Amino acid sequence: MLTINKISINDIRFPSSKEGHGSDAMHNDPDYSCVYVQIGVNHTNKDLIGHGLTFTIGRGTEVVLAAALALKSIVINTDLDQVFNHAGGWVEFHRRLTNDSQLRWIGPEKGAIHLATAAIVNAIWDLWAKLQAKPLWQLLVDMEPEQLVNCIDFQYISDALTKQEAIEILSRNKSSLQERVDIIRREGYPAYTTGVGWTGYDDQTRRQLCRQALAQGYTRFKVKVGSENIDDDRHRLRIVREEIGSDKLLMVDANQKWDVPEAIERMKQLASFNVLWIEEPTSPDDILGHEQIARQLQQYGIKVATGEHCHNRVMFKQFLTSGAMQYCQIDSCRLAGVNEVLAVILMAAKYGVPVCPHAGGVGLCEYVQHFAIWDYVAVTGTRDNRMVEYVPHLIEHFQHPARILNGHYMVPEHAGYGCHIKPESIKTYNYPNGTYWAQQQLQ
Amino acid sequence: MLTINKISINDIRFPSSKEGHGSDAMHNDPDYSCVYVQIGVNHTNKDLIGHGLTFTIGRGTEVVLAAALALKSIVINTDLDQVFNHAGGWVEFHRRLTNDSQLRWIGPEKGAIHLATAAIVNAIWDLWAKLQAKPLWQLLVDMEPEQLVNCIDFQYISDALTKQEAIEILSRNKSSLQERVDIIRREGYPAYTTGVGWTGYDDQTRRQLCRQALAQGYTRFKVKVGSENIDDDRHRLRIVREEIGSDKLLMVDANQKWDVPEAIERMKQLASFNVLWIEEPTSPDDILGHEQIARQLQQYGIKVATGEHCHNRVMFKQFLTSGAMQYCQIDSCRLAGVNEVLAVILMAAKYGVPVCPHAGGVGLCEYVQHFAIWDYVAVTGTRDNRMVEYVPHLIEHFQHPARILNGHYMVPEHAGYGCHIKPESIKTYNYPNGTYWAQQQLQ
Repeated sequence: MLTINKISINDIRFPSSKEGHGSDAMHNDPDYSCVYVQIGVNHTNKDLIGHGLTFTIGRGTEVVLAAALALKSIVINTDLDQVFNHAGGWVEFHRRLTNDSQLRWIGPEKGAIHLATAAIVNAIWDLWAKLQAKPLWQLLVDMEPEQLVNCIDFQYISDALTKQEAIEILSRNKSSLQERVDIIRREGYPAYTTGVGWTGYDDQTRRQLCRQALAQGYTRFKVKVGSENIDDDRHRLRIVREEIGSDKLLMVDANQKWDVPEAIERMKQLASFNVLWIEEPTSPDDILGHEQIARQLQQYGIKVATGEHCHNRVMFKQFLTSGAMQYCQIDSCRLAGVNEVLAVILMAAKYGVPVCPHAGGVGLCEYVQHFAIWDYVAVTGTRDNRMVEYVPHLIEHFQHPARILNGHYMVPEHAGYGCHIKPESIKTYNYPNGTYWAQQQLQ
Repeated sequence: MLTINKISINDIRFPSSKEGHGSDAMHNDPDYSCVYVQIGVNHTNKDLIGHGLTFTIGRGTEVVLAAALALKSIVINTDLDQVFNHAGGWVEFHRRLTNDSQLRWIGPEKGAIHLATAAIVNAIWDLWAKLQAKPLWQLLVDMEPEQLVNCIDFQYISDALTKQEAIEILSRNKSSLQERVDIIRREGYPAYTTGVGWTGYDDQTRRQLCRQALAQGYTRFKVKVGSENIDDDRHRLRIVREEIGSDKLLMVDANQKWDVPEAIERMKQLASFNVLWIEEPTSPDDILGHEQIARQLQQYGIKVATGEHCHNRVMFKQFLTSGAMQYCQIDSCRLAGVNEVLAVILMAAKYGVPVCPHAGGVGLCEYVQHFAIWDYVAVTGTRDNRMVEYVPHLIEHFQHPARILNGHYMVPEHAGYGCHIKPESIKTYNYPNGTYWAQQQLQ
C-alpha cells in the first residue's frame, strides 16, 4: 500500500510582465504562473512529497486551480502501488482523471481540466522517481519496453500506433542504451535560446542579448514574428542575423497570429533570413491549415513547428500523420503529464518527426529535458536535427533549475522530475495572499 | 450608452442522474447543470436583464463558473451600444473575451473558458433581442446581410469562408424571406427524439416510450450505441426498429466510445438496421479519423454526424471542408455563443453540409431552435434532410420552454433567446446552497 494521504494545491504567480520577458504577438503581458500540486504518501514510515505543476500566464490560473480541486477527490486515497506496479494500473488511473463521466464534459482532454490533470500526473511521476531515487529520465530509460508502454493510454491513437509497435520502437536501440547515457552525460543535449527574440525588447537590449548568448556558446536562436507591420518582423530578424551571422540556426515563432493564407504570404517575405522553422503560424487547432502551410513553404526550405498548444495525443496523431507538424514541440503541461507525452514521442518516432520540446515559462525547462534525454537514449538514438528550447526565467525559484553549459542542457542527476519550488518563493508569490501580492493590493 | 451595470453568475445543478435520463456510453450519470449568467443594463430608465447559460453535466460546473468569473471583469461596464450598433463592435468585444492576452492560455477557445464565454455571449444576445422585442431568430432574419456578417469573427476561417462569400450566401434567398417565415410559423421545424434511446432504460420502458413518441407524431429517432457488448447495441436497435417500423428514420450515437478501426467495424455490424448516421463514433478531436470512418461507411449508406463536442469554428472548418462531418451538429454552448454559431452555419451552407443541431440537456432545445429557423429562412432556404434533436428534460424550469407539436418545433415568439430559468428553480437547484442541495447534505 502506498496511499496518497495529502494533496495541496497552490496558485502561484510571478509578476514577469513588468520586464517584457515572454512577450509575443498574442501574449503581450504574461505573468508567468503555475498551479502547483504537492502529493504526499507515507513510505516506510517517512513522509514523501511529489511536486508537480502546470504552467499558466496569469489570469485564469484560478480556473485551473478550480479544475485541480475538482480532480482532488478522484486522487486522494489512491493506492499508488496499484498504479505503479500493476499492469494496467497507470491507464486505469489516468482514465479516472481524463474520463470522469461528469468532468469530461468540460474538456474532454483539453483546456483547464487537462492542464490541471497535467499538474497532478506530473506530481505523481515526481514521487515515483523519488521513490526509486532516480531522475525521471533514468526511471524511463530503466523501464523494460513493455512496462513503459503499459503507462500509455492508446485510446483514440491505436490507428496510428499500436502497443506492439511502441514496444518494437523501444526494443530497437535497447542494446546500446548505456553508451548513449555516457555520451549525453558528457555532452548534454542541444538547446536553443528564445531569450533574444521577445517583441518587447529594444534594439540595444536585443543586440546585447545576442552577443551574450553567442559568448555562452549558443548556436540556435528563435525570434518572435507576427507584428502588425511586417517591417517590424524584418527589423527584428535583421538585427539578430547581423549579430549571430549566417551560419547559426534561426527559427521564428508567430504564436498563432495569422490566418492560413497570411501565414504563407508573410513567411515567403521572411524567407531570405534563412529560417529553419515557422512556429505556430496560425490557430493551434488547424491541422489542415498547418499542412497547407507546410506544403506551400517547402520550396523556401521553411518547415512548420507546433505543439505547445496542441492539447492532446489525438491532435498530435493527426498533425504527425498528415505532415502538418515537421517539428514536434511537446509541452509537459499542455498534455496530461508524463504518460501522454510518452505516447506523443513514440508516435513522432514512428512517423519520423523530430521532437523539439517547448520550454520556458515556469518549470518547462526543468521538465522537458527529461524527455529529450529519454528520446535520445531510448527512443530514436539521435540528437540530429533536435534541440530543446531554453529560457532562463525564474530559475531562482527552483531547488534544482535546469543547467545549461555551452548551449547544451546538462543531464539532471537529482531524484525526481525537477519542479520543486522553494518554500520561500511559494510564500512570496502565492496568489492572492502571498507577501508580494498582498503588498501589491495595499499599493 | 447602454452600459452593463450588473452581472450575476450561478452554478445550477439538477439531480437528473437519479432517473437514467441522458445516460450513454461515456456519461452514465449526468446531473444536467448549467452556469447561468444574468447581465443587466438600464435602458430608458428601466432595468433590463439578459439571461444566458452554458450546459454542463454536474461536477466541473464550478470550474466553468470560475472561468465566467474571470471573464466578468472584461464584461462589466461595457457599453453595449458600441457592441450592437457599430461596425466591428461585436468582433472587438468577442475577441476581448476569446483572446485576452492571459486568459487565452487556458484555451485558447476551448474547454472551460470557452463554455463560460458562451454563457456570457448568449446572455448579451438575449438582451439584444429583448431590446428589440423580438425572438432571436427574428432578430437574425431581420438583419441586413452585411450587418449580420459584421457580428462574425473570421479570424482563422478566412481560407474557408470570406466575409464577402458569407454576404453572398445571405443575399441569395433574401427576396423570399417572408414566404418562409410564414411556412415555418405554420409547419414548424422537424424534430427527432433521443428520448427512446438512452442506455439506462429497460426494454419495457423503451417500447413504451417508442409508442408514445409515435403517437406524438415523431418519425425520427436516435438510439445510443457503444455498449461493451455489441449484442446490447443490437438488442436496443432491434427493439426500437420493431416499434417504429422500417419506414422511420433511425440514427445512432456512440458518444466517442470507439477507436477509428473499431468504429468502422462496429457500424458495419449494425448496418442492417438501416441507420442514417453514426454520431460521435470516436474522439471529437479526430478530424482525419472521422473522415476515414465516413469514407469506409459510404457503401453502407451510413453518414457521420458530429459537433456537440466540436469546440470552435476552426475545428468545424476542418470537419466541414474535409468531408469528415456529413451532418453538422452545432451546440449553442460548446461554441462561444451566437456569433460563433453563425460562422459555422454559414460555413456548413457553403460546403453543402446539413445542420442538425445538438439539443437536450439544459436549455439547448430552447437555444438551437432559433438557429434552425434562421438557417431555413435566411441561409439555405430548405428543411430537407435537416432536423433538430429534442429531449424534453427539465422544461418545467424554463419560463418559455420549446414547444413541440406533431414532431416539429413550433416557432418561438417570445422576445429574447429563450433561456430564462424560473426564479424558484434557481433558488432550489443553485449549487451547493440551493434548498435541494442543502437538504441533500443533511441526509
